[in-house]
Amino acid sequence: MKTSYQKSDFPVDGIRRYLEPGPIVLVSSSCDGEDNIMTMGWYTVMDFSPSLIGCYIVGYNHSFDMIRKSGECVINIPELHMIDTVIGIGNSTGRQIDKFAEFGLTKGKGEFVHAPLINECYASFECKVKDASLLDKYSFFILEVVKAHVATTPEFPRTVHYRGGGTFMVSGEHISFPERFRPENL
Amino acid sequence: MKTSYQKSDFPVDGIRRYLEPGPIVLVSSSCDGEDNIMTMGWYTVMDFSPSLIGCYIVGYNHSFDMIRKSGECVINIPELHMIDTVIGIGNSTGRQIDKFAEFGLTKGKGEFVHAPLINECYASFECKVKDASLLDKYSFFILEVVKAHVATTPEFPRTVHYRGGGTFMVSGEHISFPERFRPENL
Repeated sequence: MKTSYQKSDFPVDGIRRYLEPGPIVLVSSSCDGEDNIMTMGWYTVMDFSPSLIGCYIVGYNHSFDMIRKSGECVINIPELHMIDTVIGIGNSTGRQIDKFAEFGLTKGKGEFVHAPLINECYASFECKVKDASLLDKYSFFILEVVKAHVATTPEFPRTVHYRGGGTFMVSGEHISFPERFRPENL
Repeated sequence: MKTSYQKSDFPVDGIRRYLEPGPIVLVSSSCDGEDNIMTMGWYTVMDFSPSLIGCYIVGYNHSFDMIRKSGECVINIPELHMIDTVIGIGNSTGRQIDKFAEFGLTKGKGEFVHAPLINECYASFECKVKDASLLDKYSFFILEVVKAHVATTPEFPRTVHYRGGGTFMVSGEHISFPERFRPENL
């Protein structure tokens, strides 16, 4: 597995560039000396500054308790070459296995959170839980991205987008028309 | 522009198939005899049954008031061939123009909402506002999809996914591994 991304800091108010297209992400968390990873496809950008991400995490998920209790997590973006890992992580539970060990992933150190970054991913966004008031009713966390680490190349990651039914869409070509946008929409 | 999709009813609890991958959608609304359309990229699936979609709509958007007041809207999925329309709709305001007329779009009739469906789109999901309690704090609507109309072909739409900066990712190939998923994850 490719582990050789060179990464640099990225402005947290610009991460919609990577999340708005809707890729499956890997969410890492840490609580009481235990680290875990889950897959996530139900999330949305909610603001630029503060950089807010809203995400639904089902309550019986092991990561739900870890993120709620620790108040933090890391959103990591895997590329297509990690598809086996994405499927494996999504179909196992951290209650039974150590997913970092099981899937041969290495941990990076965050600057503002204790949860580990996943080095093998294209990007990692350190997050703090900003608002937990919707958890009981909707299982919905509002996270603030406090630090972003992004690979310097390629310009766009080759991401996978889950459809259910065991099927993923793989990101395709890019098309760009900045001259046809209002400045505030760029 | 292609307007010849044949559509059929689709189970509302299965629409994650089309929205979880994260395409740009066109949201149509109707209020006080006026119809409007906006582009939307900040939304997420939140439940299967009821079929819930959470979405951020900025408060100064003309559609915000129309959806809040009427309590309903339609989420429509455009394909790549509508990219000019998508850009045009996202960079104009319904306060100044009639977007259906301006962009040559035709209106379909919903079964449960007064907001018009956009016939030229691959799919249309009739929505009722389920929870407006997060509007003041987060501009976040929680919608319930009450009826889904989906083209019978192609199996997957060729969608566009916005990144900001005037750039879109176009959906690519599909890969499928149902045998490696737990039944509850399919």
